[in-house]
Amino acid sequence: MSLLDKLEWRYATKKFDSTKKIPADQLNQVLEAIRLAPSSYGLQQFRLLVVSDHAIREKLAAAAWNQPQLLEASHVLVFAAETKLDTAFVDANIELTAKVRNIGTETLAGWKNMIGDGIKLRSNGDVLVHWAQKQAYIGLGIAISVAAELGLDSCPMEGFDPEEFDQILGLKEKNLTATVILPVGYRSEDDGYIQLAKVRRPADEFFIAY
Amino acid sequence: MSLLDKLEWRYATKKFDSTKKIPADQLNQVLEAIRLAPSSYGLQQFRLLVVSDHAIREKLAAAAWNQPQLLEASHVLVFAAETKLDTAFVDANIELTAKVRNIGTETLAGWKNMIGDGIKLRSNGDVLVHWAQKQAYIGLGIAISVAAELGLDSCPMEGFDPEEFDQILGLKEKNLTATVILPVGYRSEDDGYIQLAKVRRPADEFFIAY
Repeated sequence: MSLLDKLEWRYATKKFDSTKKIPADQLNQVLEAIRLAPSSYGLQQFRLLVVSDHAIREKLAAAAWNQPQLLEASHVLVFAAETKLDTAFVDANIELTAKVRNIGTETLAGWKNMIGDGIKLRSNGDVLVHWAQKQAYIGLGIAISVAAELGLDSCPMEGFDPEEFDQILGLKEKNLTATVILPVGYRSEDDGYIQLAKVRRPADEFFIAY
Repeated sequence: MSLLDKLEWRYATKKFDSTKKIPADQLNQVLEAIRLAPSSYGLQQFRLLVVSDHAIREKLAAAAWNQPQLLEASHVLVFAAETKLDTAFVDANIELTAKVRNIGTETLAGWKNMIGDGIKLRSNGDVLVHWAQKQAYIGLGIAISVAAELGLDSCPMEGFDPEEFDQILGLKEKNLTATVILPVGYRSEDDGYIQLAKVRRPADEFFIAY
């Protein structure tokens, strides 16, 4: 089955089979793909929280209208955007780049200035956080793809209270904010949503050719 | 090669081989995967522009600091967010859902109210457009994945002037705004960036387990 066929197979799973856990090596493939996701300037303006603890998941479910995916999925992935894109954050990225590529940080001075300009351009109001969150959504799209490729079910969800999530997970002190979540696991065969036809705009109302 | 291996293989291609065009069936797989991408409430708050015309690409390149990907890639995909998420937009989605699932629109009244509440929640300032743009980034992540799966190169780019893009592509009158672009095609073997090691935060600085 092609990846496209698998993306046709996937759906936003409402009812997971709570008896099934994702094997560690498959979970790691999903996580690694998120870590490898591209981001603006390669800054990785988000982190990934992997929640398995049941007591914490009960608190998260309460902050997400008790949607059952929070409790029944194998794992809950929380994409959390960086809220403090300051000089220290950029410096850490520059130092990492210099280390990985075995070059001096001084050779990255021009690049560092470009990043600084990019941040300045977005520094009005909440734009910087929205920008960081958008990068997290690239990771989300890649996670959905890799999960589908492995035959894993998932359900991208925005329906939760970010402030409550931040408090439960202690994110504020880490300069992070919960942005979007992805419970992953296995569909329960009696999830009524399996049968529903996918609703998408027809090609001629979605694509525009130039 | 697993999809994860292919995501390791991919990189933000700077220099494409302008002599190579993506076969139609492969391009269609990438496009269809974007059309199938999940979105908040399934609203598909973005459209995809597929740009092949060279004269238009020259104008777009001029509005993107003359980055060569705009001219040398096989195709340029422009993700454009919907800027007018009004009642008519929601109604069209409800009618499509009713048609695809062969049910009456009146059975979707509760769902329609939920969508209305979701939009109202985000109606302060530019939040609604950022929200639509985030959904486009899910499509971007999926497009990057499917391209990599097919052995196609791509380069996600935010480095362009959205207002100029909107003008060149006539997007304002379509209630769309250019959000992020993805030139796709084939790497030129003399792209110096092929050799550069991927820079990503180590796992223990990116994941947090709960």
